[in-house]
Amino acid sequence: MAHKYVYLFKEGDGTMRELLGGKGANLAEMTNLGLPVPQGFTVTTEACIKYYEDGKVITDEVKDQIFAALKELEKIEGKKFGDINNPLLVSVRSGARASMPGMMDTILNLGLNDQSVLGLAKLTNNERFAYDSYRRFIQMFSDVVMEQDKSRFERILDEIKKKKGCELDTDLTAEDLKEIVDLFKKLYKEGVGEDFPQDPAVQLMEAVQAVFRSWENPRAIVYRRMNDIPSSWGTAVNVQTMVFGNMGEDSGTGVAFTRDPSTGENKLYGEYLMNAQGEDVVAGIRTPNHISVLEQQNPEIYNQFAEIAEKLEKHYKDMQDMEFTIERGKLYMLQTRNGKRTGKAALKIAVDLVKEGLITEKEAILKIDPKQLDSVLHPQFEASALKKAKPIAKGLPASPGAASGAVVFTAETAVEWKNAGKDVVLVRLETSPEDIEGMYASQGILTARGGMTSHAAVVARGMGTCCVAGCGEIKIDEEKKIFTVNGKVYKEGDPISLDGSTGYVYGEAIPTEPASVTGDFAIIMEWADKYRALEVRANADSPADAAQAVEFGAQGIGLTRTEHMFFEADRIPAMREMIVAKTEQSRKKALAKLLPMQKNDFKGIFEALQGRPATIRFLDPPLHEFVPTHDEDIKDLAKEMGLEYEELKATIDSLHEFNPMLGHRGCRLSVTYPEIAEMQTRAIIEAAIEVKKEKGLDVVPEIMIPLVGDVKEFDFVKEVVVKTADEIIANSGIELKYLVGTMIEIPRATLTADKIAQSAEFFSFGTNDLTQMTYGFSRDDAGKFLDDYYSKQIFEFDPFARIDTEGVGQLVKLAVEKGKATRPNIKLGICGEHGGDPFTVEFCHNVGLTYVSCSPFRVPIARLAAAQANIKNPRN
Amino acid sequence: MAHKYVYLFKEGDGTMRELLGGKGANLAEMTNLGLPVPQGFTVTTEACIKYYEDGKVITDEVKDQIFAALKELEKIEGKKFGDINNPLLVSVRSGARASMPGMMDTILNLGLNDQSVLGLAKLTNNERFAYDSYRRFIQMFSDVVMEQDKSRFERILDEIKKKKGCELDTDLTAEDLKEIVDLFKKLYKEGVGEDFPQDPAVQLMEAVQAVFRSWENPRAIVYRRMNDIPSSWGTAVNVQTMVFGNMGEDSGTGVAFTRDPSTGENKLYGEYLMNAQGEDVVAGIRTPNHISVLEQQNPEIYNQFAEIAEKLEKHYKDMQDMEFTIERGKLYMLQTRNGKRTGKAALKIAVDLVKEGLITEKEAILKIDPKQLDSVLHPQFEASALKKAKPIAKGLPASPGAASGAVVFTAETAVEWKNAGKDVVLVRLETSPEDIEGMYASQGILTARGGMTSHAAVVARGMGTCCVAGCGEIKIDEEKKIFTVNGKVYKEGDPISLDGSTGYVYGEAIPTEPASVTGDFAIIMEWADKYRALEVRANADSPADAAQAVEFGAQGIGLTRTEHMFFEADRIPAMREMIVAKTEQSRKKALAKLLPMQKNDFKGIFEALQGRPATIRFLDPPLHEFVPTHDEDIKDLAKEMGLEYEELKATIDSLHEFNPMLGHRGCRLSVTYPEIAEMQTRAIIEAAIEVKKEKGLDVVPEIMIPLVGDVKEFDFVKEVVVKTADEIIANSGIELKYLVGTMIEIPRATLTADKIAQSAEFFSFGTNDLTQMTYGFSRDDAGKFLDDYYSKQIFEFDPFARIDTEGVGQLVKLAVEKGKATRPNIKLGICGEHGGDPFTVEFCHNVGLTYVSCSPFRVPIARLAAAQANIKNPRN
Repeated sequence: MAHKYVYLFKEGDGTMRELLGGKGANLAEMTNLGLPVPQGFTVTTEACIKYYEDGKVITDEVKDQIFAALKELEKIEGKKFGDINNPLLVSVRSGARASMPGMMDTILNLGLNDQSVLGLAKLTNNERFAYDSYRRFIQMFSDVVMEQDKSRFERILDEIKKKKGCELDTDLTAEDLKEIVDLFKKLYKEGVGEDFPQDPAVQLMEAVQAVFRSWENPRAIVYRRMNDIPSSWGTAVNVQTMVFGNMGEDSGTGVAFTRDPSTGENKLYGEYLMNAQGEDVVAGIRTPNHISVLEQQNPEIYNQFAEIAEKLEKHYKDMQDMEFTIERGKLYMLQTRNGKRTGKAALKIAVDLVKEGLITEKEAILKIDPKQLDSVLHPQFEASALKKAKPIAKGLPASPGAASGAVVFTAETAVEWKNAGKDVVLVRLETSPEDIEGMYASQGILTARGGMTSHAAVVARGMGTCCVAGCGEIKIDEEKKIFTVNGKVYKEGDPISLDGSTGYVYGEAIPTEPASVTGDFAIIMEWADKYRALEVRANADSPADAAQAVEFGAQGIGLTRTEHMFFEADRIPAMREMIVAKTEQSRKKALAKLLPMQKNDFKGIFEALQGRPATIRFLDPPLHEFVPTHDEDIKDLAKEMGLEYEELKATIDSLHEFNPMLGHRGCRLSVTYPEIAEMQTRAIIEAAIEVKKEKGLDVVPEIMIPLVGDVKEFDFVKEVVVKTADEIIANSGIELKYLVGTMIEIPRATLTADKIAQSAEFFSFGTNDLTQMTYGFSRDDAGKFLDDYYSKQIFEFDPFARIDTEGVGQLVKLAVEKGKATRPNIKLGICGEHGGDPFTVEFCHNVGLTYVSCSPFRVPIARLAAAQANIKNPRN
Repeated sequence: MAHKYVYLFKEGDGTMRELLGGKGANLAEMTNLGLPVPQGFTVTTEACIKYYEDGKVITDEVKDQIFAALKELEKIEGKKFGDINNPLLVSVRSGARASMPGMMDTILNLGLNDQSVLGLAKLTNNERFAYDSYRRFIQMFSDVVMEQDKSRFERILDEIKKKKGCELDTDLTAEDLKEIVDLFKKLYKEGVGEDFPQDPAVQLMEAVQAVFRSWENPRAIVYRRMNDIPSSWGTAVNVQTMVFGNMGEDSGTGVAFTRDPSTGENKLYGEYLMNAQGEDVVAGIRTPNHISVLEQQNPEIYNQFAEIAEKLEKHYKDMQDMEFTIERGKLYMLQTRNGKRTGKAALKIAVDLVKEGLITEKEAILKIDPKQLDSVLHPQFEASALKKAKPIAKGLPASPGAASGAVVFTAETAVEWKNAGKDVVLVRLETSPEDIEGMYASQGILTARGGMTSHAAVVARGMGTCCVAGCGEIKIDEEKKIFTVNGKVYKEGDPISLDGSTGYVYGEAIPTEPASVTGDFAIIMEWADKYRALEVRANADSPADAAQAVEFGAQGIGLTRTEHMFFEADRIPAMREMIVAKTEQSRKKALAKLLPMQKNDFKGIFEALQGRPATIRFLDPPLHEFVPTHDEDIKDLAKEMGLEYEELKATIDSLHEFNPMLGHRGCRLSVTYPEIAEMQTRAIIEAAIEVKKEKGLDVVPEIMIPLVGDVKEFDFVKEVVVKTADEIIANSGIELKYLVGTMIEIPRATLTADKIAQSAEFFSFGTNDLTQMTYGFSRDDAGKFLDDYYSKQIFEFDPFARIDTEGVGQLVKLAVEKGKATRPNIKLGICGEHGGDPFTVEFCHNVGLTYVSCSPFRVPIARLAAAQANIKNPRN
């Protein structure tokens, strides 16, 4: 027998999601459960893949199966396609494996033509209804299938209404509608170049093809990228017998959830309209009733529906989102699926389902999309207040959460006002490392320039601070301390609010609510910890971050970036003094000034961690990041430092690099200036000793040497570390263990990981840099062309957001194998933004890492993702 | 028995070079041949390695063996170490596997102390001679072994001479010398903090240790890096009985070669001095005699020596470099080794040895260091003229050869004057891509800034043009068109000369001789071609380069960089028009202007190649390289293009990249602007068709898509190429084959080479970029810190000069395996500067590449290296 590309609903079942798509599988399952489902058939996802393989053609093989199924359907329903007496009308919808907005809209009433419209009129005894359906169908088909401009049809409708003196569509008579149908058909011919197809078979094939086509429309591509859906899945097409909710007051249509999708509360939640079609409920012209009203209006139907809803939830063991239609007093189920829900609801429903005995803890964990936790981990606007607010601009949703405060234009003012007790929002053209303190002091950050990976965006995500970036609509005048949007001027001190999850900017104060890991969230986290094998650490550069990380359940710190400490106002002068030093001696003098400050930072972090491990990375960025670039600033600095401008300018110029990413940074700095490594070792080890002595905390510092490409580089710096540390420890009179390891972030390090592991006691994969070097493009620069890559389907995913398993992942695997071959118990971690991405967490679990480390605000996400990974693929 | 660390000369032989070093093995071999060699012993290279492994200590195990050998030596010579009557004196010298200047100097007369000096006086009946030897020994030991400042000893000598009224050293009496010995011993104690060691055993162990130490002195490290010698080899130490050439007029010493080392002529060549020690011959105070004079002066000794020389040459089957001493009428051989020679001599000697039946063609090929060919491939100064010239400054020897011409300061003047028939030398602060035409027009290029990998250096090497770069001593005033060095001013038009092999700059015209592949050179090349398996192509961007490449024996072009064509004065306006174009249409308009020019370039190249294959790479650099960066230039350009300055400035700013190396370039340009790929395809294919029609040459263009990291990028651009090409070919009415392949230069491409090979018909390894990304540093920026890496022995070799087999090579191997797995007959090449490096050529041969491609001037080097690789490791 030939390969089967088309399934009647009664031939499928709920397990066939890959083949039939989610919608098709559920329609089949409901059919099997004996629920009242208008019958139909599903054209499989394989047919869609075949369509693309065959050069965007539906072959006769598939076509024949479609028409064979249609014939069966005619038998089941006792109707005939295009019949003048008892016509079969169908809806056509897309249905991928995962629910996917952005694809083709539904086509209703397909099968209507000049003949069957008469049949429909006869059947319903309502000529007006029949012609209204026909004109809607022409309009929908033209728009959705033939991509004709919808507004031209609306214009005709308006003209006729005006001509006839009608106000509402419903005022039009059957005759008016016939006239409109004629005009629509004419317009169709003008636009498409052919007559509107009278043959329902042609209508059907065009509609099926349009669904297949819509799989590759730009919105669908973007949605797939955002939701990790591969383009190779394809979509199915569902062809279902029409039922009509608009056949009078004994008809109706609605949508409902088995539980409240925004709170998770366990009661039916939904809306319906009598005498209406599905689109009317959504369109918002009439106000639908709450589902509970149906109980009074038609208790019989309500009870039948409520029973079905309960049955479906028990059957699917999850909250259901259902569509139904009542045709002349008879209930039909058009669709059911696991309902979308807010993060908060997801947590409550999962916990409740376990309490109700419907699912196990493991199943509960698998039910929650880790990415959804983002929304419960950041402050949110109070819902009621947000409803009333109107955005004034929209930027990129760069770091989630909600923020409200007074506008400030400089980092200094931010710090000052914050210290004076004011909430502030920092507004900048773009941020730079010097703004760090001000960014910390702000509730939120708004920039006019820069993308999702700009400095502001990356740092804000790390801090868990709300950020809207690249908001080009606002024109900032930093000198005058104002910004303008749509002609309105906002001054320093004016209230604004930001929504980092949507990118909206509001010109007013909106109250916010804080986030906390309590209630259902805490229960889910407890279960996640029970079932995961992978440890979860956080990236934290300050005692405050470390404390936040612990609160979110981090088991330690996987990355402390020591350079952020040097940007603070009281430190940067000493840092700059070190940079311009001409001799080792003067460099050491400047470093000596930094030592006590850095030591105190580490003490604070060790104390916040209460004995949990901390990986501390040595100075990483190129030195030019610490000095100004503009002539004016250089002049000021020269004055401040008591240097000649020309001399300082020459020093700064000599630090210039063509490709800073590939320049003098990481361990290369310590090779040139071992005294930097010496000072940092001293700060770490002395801090650990003092915390041990003062607080009795047993700290085991993990010293991490960055950017190693050859074991000899590592050995050179390690020798400095060990010599310095052992001397300090010997003099301290107490025992202290410490580890020296490296970041694996350079391709060559992965290739020679066996040798590096001879010396390095741990690896931490720096997948940000590793991705940049493996692909050969920098995050800062790739923004310019990656959009072309996405739109041309060269890339499906952002390799900086989730790990590229094929290339970068191959190197990670290689390094894990080589590292373990030399040192079987080597501690293996990952730091960088990938560490908080659920897909990457699963990869890390599977590849055998010890831990992942991510920003504190992503720790719960990583804990959940790690549990899911271990449930799917248990580690021995 | 314990491991043997010390060998008497009579215990070793010539095959033990790895263990005994070159010098030690040859001394042993000469001993075995029965030649008159002062006896001694060799401390092995293994002892040196052990010394470092043991923490820079000579263990008792080794020490005991040294003294056991010494005892044997005393028996053989009938003398005793430190004896007051018949003292044994020895020389101590280093001797690595390969001859290595930069290591420890020789110590002579070791064994002298306050006792044995009396014995030496008695034995020679010459007290003055004995004390002179003693004071020389103290001075040498202090300098070479104890690293004391030599000049302080010289100062004492001068003071005593002054005090005694002597003019020459020889005027000093035995008593004077005794006084000097006392003063030297005092100075030694002051400097070292201990008495001068009287125990010859202590002297010996200090000297041995000093040799071991010298293996890691900075000069030795630099030399090893320049000559591919690994530090793991270690050095041996040779301890040899002293013989004295300064015992009177019947004594003497000299050095000689069996053939002329500068021309290769087959006759004894060398110098000697009677009544002298080795150092006197070298010191240049007395003028030595030509070796032929000895024939008249002492025919018996001369004949004995000539006979030994012939015997040694026959034995070693190579030209020998020998040291000899005559002590009281008796000839001693102190050393023999294969003599260093000029490139020209190397060729002649190899050919002559084959003619003489001493060696085979294969052996002749293996005898020539491919790097030496460099000197015969570029113009050289006439030797006689050079002797008289004095350099005025020294820069980096950035591109070999010699140049002489009139100073010009701009590329435009260079072109103008060249067209007027003048030879010019272009002098610039630094060069930029816009100078290309001027660089072509010049005999040589001199820059004040930039290193060995600066623009000037890289481009000049590619062109085979002499270049001295980074000559900081000259101060250039480009506006005034002068440069100043040591107070002297050189104006436009003044004659200067450059030696690109030494870095010397001369303030005068020095005549040069051109290079050509004729005579012995041609014979060797013919043999090389006979024995090699690897093909050799050249990198060439112009018809002239292509012709040069063919002349040097290239079998085709492995890389044509199309961007160089766009920098020329008549093209860059259209290029810039394309860059600032805001729409696809205006971009296409600008590209249409470039099309005929580019097509003509390709026609010229195809014609020059006479049917040989050519790989043409699509536009690679980021677009900002084609636009000016300085405000003034932008203003000029805006005027020229009829644009507003602000608009042009904004466009140029938008092209700015943080890391251009990791930016919008390579195939990424064609993804964004497929019309560029389309135009370049059109130019290539139309050129091939026209050349085929006009000249009947069967061209098979190889179109190379650069910077691919994912097969989908390649497929996207390939589709544009194939569509465009096939249409043109179909319309042309003739058949044309063409290939589409890619450069493998991004780590991810090597990791996914199996997938890429599904579409790509050839790979060309771009090891420049691959090295940069695998190591994570850019050539432009690494210059700043790589010196630290060399001096701290983290790197032994420049990974941009020879391939890093461990890291980058691992990726190349992987890509070769994966590529062949998918497409067994895939054509595999390498382009980039590594392609002309003999070590890398051998790697490419072993790893199974089809060809290497390098700059035309390195083609003969690659041909020879390929032959050597195949002789060592024949390919089936």
